Parts: sequence; C-alpha cells; structure tokens
Amino acid sequence: MHLLDCDTGVDDAVAILHLLGSGAPLAAVTVTFGNVGAAQAAENTLRVLHLAGRSDVPVAVGGESTLDGTPTRHSATLVHGANGLGGAELAPSPAALLDEPAPELIVRLAHEHAGELRIVATGGFTNLARALQLDPSIAGLVREVTLMGGAALAPGNVTPSAEANIMADPLAAAAVLGAGWPVVLVPLDATMTQLLEEDDWQRLADAGGVAGAAAEILDGYLDFYHGVFGRRCAAMHDALAVAIALGEVEPELAPRAHVEVDVSDGPSRARTIVDLRHRYRGYAPAVDSPVRVVLEAQQPLAPRLVERILAL
Amino acid sequence: MHLLDCDTGVDDAVAILHLLGSGAPLAAVTVTFGNVGAAQAAENTLRVLHLAGRSDVPVAVGGESTLDGTPTRHSATLVHGANGLGGAELAPSPAALLDEPAPELIVRLAHEHAGELRIVATGGFTNLARALQLDPSIAGLVREVTLMGGAALAPGNVTPSAEANIMADPLAAAAVLGAGWPVVLVPLDATMTQLLEEDDWQRLADAGGVAGAAAEILDGYLDFYHGVFGRRCAAMHDALAVAIALGEVEPELAPRAHVEVDVSDGPSRARTIVDLRHRYRGYAPAVDSPVRVVLEAQQPLAPRLVERILAL
Repeated sequence: MHLLDCDTGVDDAVAILHLLGSGAPLAAVTVTFGNVGAAQAAENTLRVLHLAGRSDVPVAVGGESTLDGTPTRHSATLVHGANGLGGAELAPSPAALLDEPAPELIVRLAHEHAGELRIVATGGFTNLARALQLDPSIAGLVREVTLMGGAALAPGNVTPSAEANIMADPLAAAAVLGAGWPVVLVPLDATMTQLLEEDDWQRLADAGGVAGAAAEILDGYLDFYHGVFGRRCAAMHDALAVAIALGEVEPELAPRAHVEVDVSDGPSRARTIVDLRHRYRGYAPAVDSPVRVVLEAQQPLAPRLVERILAL
Repeated sequence: MHLLDCDTGVDDAVAILHLLGSGAPLAAVTVTFGNVGAAQAAENTLRVLHLAGRSDVPVAVGGESTLDGTPTRHSATLVHGANGLGGAELAPSPAALLDEPAPELIVRLAHEHAGELRIVATGGFTNLARALQLDPSIAGLVREVTLMGGAALAPGNVTPSAEANIMADPLAAAAVLGAGWPVVLVPLDATMTQLLEEDDWQRLADAGGVAGAAAEILDGYLDFYHGVFGRRCAAMHDALAVAIALGEVEPELAPRAHVEVDVSDGPSRARTIVDLRHRYRGYAPAVDSPVRVVLEAQQPLAPRLVERILAL
C-alpha cells in the first residue's frame, strides 16, 4: 500500500499519473508546500487525480509553514508556472480535501497499514516530520520511505549545494532522514540522468486525453530545462522516486550511508551531507545506516512513464 | 620559475622529489603547517632537499597559527607518521632556514619574478593568504597558483565534506581562492584517482639511494591507504598538483567555476563549494572565474613520478 506526499508541481503531477497508471494501491495523497504553496498544491493534486478519473483517492493537506514555524516562500514559478502546473488549466475536481490534516492522516494510515505502508515523498518533508512529532512510533510501522531530495555528489539545483525539496524545510528533512525508518533517498545524482526527451513529450502530446494534458503541463518545464541541458528535455525527479518505490526501476548503485542535513545558515545550508568516503573500496563493508542513497538508476524511466500515462 | 609551498608530509616529500627530478627551476620552498606543525615540516623539507643533493634551495617557514590567530592542531600522524615522514630518519641538512618568514619571501619572489612565478601549494594556505595581506598586488604578479586542496563533487577526507588542506585554515583558503589571481585547484576528485601502486613502490624500494629513501617514507602511507582503497597503494595528492603545474599531466576536465569556501562552524565547514551546475551542458558557456577546477586528470602520474625520483 502506497502513500504519496507531494507538492504538485509539474513533475509531481507526472509522478501522480505514473503511480495511478501503474495500478498500485494508493491509500492517499498528502500535500505539502514546495514548488508552490500547500493550498495551490492541494488544488492541483485534486485536479490531476480528477483528470485521471481517480477523484476517489483521499487527499489531505498540511500547513504552509516549516517545522520551526517560518512562513514559506515559493519561487519556483519559473520552473513550474504560476499555478504549478505549467499554466495548464485542468478541470476542477468534484472531490474535496479531507478535513483531517496531512500529518494526522499519515499517522492514521501508518497504523492502519502497519508494516505495509510505503511512503513516497516528493515535496518538502514537513508533513512527514510533523507526523513523526505527533507519533514517533510510526517510524517502526512504515515499511519504507522513498524520498526525492538532496544531492550526494552532484551539484544542487537551488544553490550550488542544495536541492529544492531539502531547502523547502531543512529541519524537516533532517528529522525525516534521521528518524530511523528505512529510507531510500533519491537525490539529484540519480534524477538528473533520467530525462524525458522531446520525443517522449511528443508521444504524450499526440495521444491526447490524459496524456495530452500531461504534455500541456510539461511543455514549459521542458523549456526551463533547455537552460540546464542545452536542449528541450526534463528531469523526472519525482517520477523516478515513484518508479523506484514501485520496484519498476532497480537502482544499480544505492549504498547505505550516513546522511546529515546542513541546517546551518552558512552557504551549504540545506545540503545533504552524505558520507561516501567508503566509495573507494566499493562501499564495502556496508555502513550500518537505515538510509540508502541512490547514486545510479540508469534503467530508462521515460518510456515506462509514457506507457503508464497512456494506460490511463 | 616555481615556488613550492608545502607542509612536508609524506606526499609533499614525494612532490618535492618529483619537482627536483623534473629539473624545473625552483626559486624556493616555503613551509607551512598542515600534516605536521610548521617547524617539523620545515625540518623535513630541509632534509628531503638534502637527500636529493639540493640543500642549495632556499627554504623559509611561516607561522604556526591560522589566519585568524588560532593555534593549530595536527592530527595527521596516523597518515604521515609521528615525524611527518612516515618515521623515516633522513640525515640532517647542513643548510639552515632563511631568516625571512615565508609570507615575506613569497612577496619578494613574486616581485623579483613578476609575471613568471608559478606557485604550487600543497599544504594549508596560510602563507599565501598572509602574503596577499602583506601585499595584495602580488595577485597581479604571480603567473599561476596551483593548489592541491578541496573536494568538488568527491567526498572529503577529514570529514564527509572537507579536505585536509582546506580544513587546516578555511579562512586562508577562502582568501587564496578569492584573490583574483589565476588558480588551478586540484581537488580530491582528481587526486584520489592518481594512485601509486605496490609495484611502483617496489621499483622505488629496489632502486635504493634517493628512491629507496622515498620508498621508506612512503611505506606506512601505503598501509594507511589500505583502509581507504582496500589494498596497499597511495593517492599522490601533492605530486599531482606539481605534475599539473609542470604541464606533465594535462587535465582532461578542468572547467572554470565559482568557488566558495564554507567558513561556517556547521557540518560543512571547510568544504569547497564549487558551483558546477553548468555540468549538464558540458560546462558551456564558460563561467567568468579565475579559478579552474581539475575534475579529471587521468594521464598516469605514478610512472612519471617514479622516473623523476629515479633521475635524482
């Protein structure tokens, strides 16, 4: 049983569609801030689920402030468009948000599906951190937590050091990475090699329907990444985390490692400090850490992702 | 004309021998702390030069405290042995240190060889930073500064983030990297792939004489690196910087990049923050920075190094 925690967001939208297209059981989607504010992300989530004919999936939203109470700023409109969906105007959903706040829902579902719940988180990690604060015992109940976030040996994206999901709430990221539950961290090292190319995009656009809407959502995102890669394409950060959580992509290199989050106000703020000093002996012997860090996941994601979306 | 600033140190000793063996003109060796204290490093430097029959090379020493006046600690005896030369007892040199402190000598030689002086620095960067404080104009006089230090995308060695030469004096490193002079930074990304293997070591040991003494200096260092690489071998950090400065090794990948040193007291202290976000488009267009960062330098160094030492 899966739970997706996201900040929808262009690549979150694609990740939601991928997850739905896989047919994997989905207990709920919880929504946080990051790419956009939590309220906007929640509205986007409802609309994306409705687009896929799945307005039955429960959606809960968390707060708009970080773990230490700081109101959040959202500056990713250049990447995700003003509405977080690349300007695409999806039809409103008939469904409403749950009254239950996202952290409470996470706690409840961790108990209801004790030992079986797989959480995939692709936004800031505030909801998960607050859930751990509400009930630390969930760390022993959740089967696995797959996090899209951070940069181990790769450069950051919002600063030379920091990746956006960690920067959204570094203290929350530190709490989630340090909770002791089994974590698979999917950092930029892996996601920046998983690109949706123009040809993949064209397949979605040509298909129309849900896929066509996905292409519309993605259009400006590919333009943004032209500045990064020198051609129209896009890194499928969140969908890679979903695909890894589903077992569709099996990482070639995901050593256990100690991970610390730099929560200082220095220039390395929000960096994931991954201790990879054992790399020179092939990461052996294995480090005693509940966190595995995906450094390489090269199985092609984009064709699978397109197939999943076309299946909707 | 070259000037070597070092903290001799096992791999500094090898770098000195490599530089002498190349026959390149050497104006002086200035000595700082790092692997050992400055006084011990100076004594080691004199002895290594004497070993190679070059006690004519002027040697000056700098202070024992960092740029902000903090007394230094030296904890690298595990790597470099109690005396910094792996326990090898080299004969004392008949030569003495110059009375002139290292920073003053650097300033004087920068003027005497205006436009021609190439500095190679393989220890903490305090001497260079103090020279810049004494006379900022030297930044416009020195032809090139090659620094062994830092880690761009590779893990650190003294912490998950930090490399030893930067950790020795982060403020000094920040000053030297930010001085505006042309810098070639040779970080762990490059040096951890340049290994002296057991076979190379055996060639030195079998040759006796200067090479045999080098083998004796290196012996425990190869043991230390067994814990890092899983076999007896050793990273030739300082010799790689020398070989790059001499043009003997031409880096395959050395993009210009903005470099900041984390001088915070956070967990990323002493990290070199190299902005490599342009990597995904082949580091194009080139960044306007006086610092080039050597990410790859694969031409085999060890055979050349052995040849240089055997030539002495």
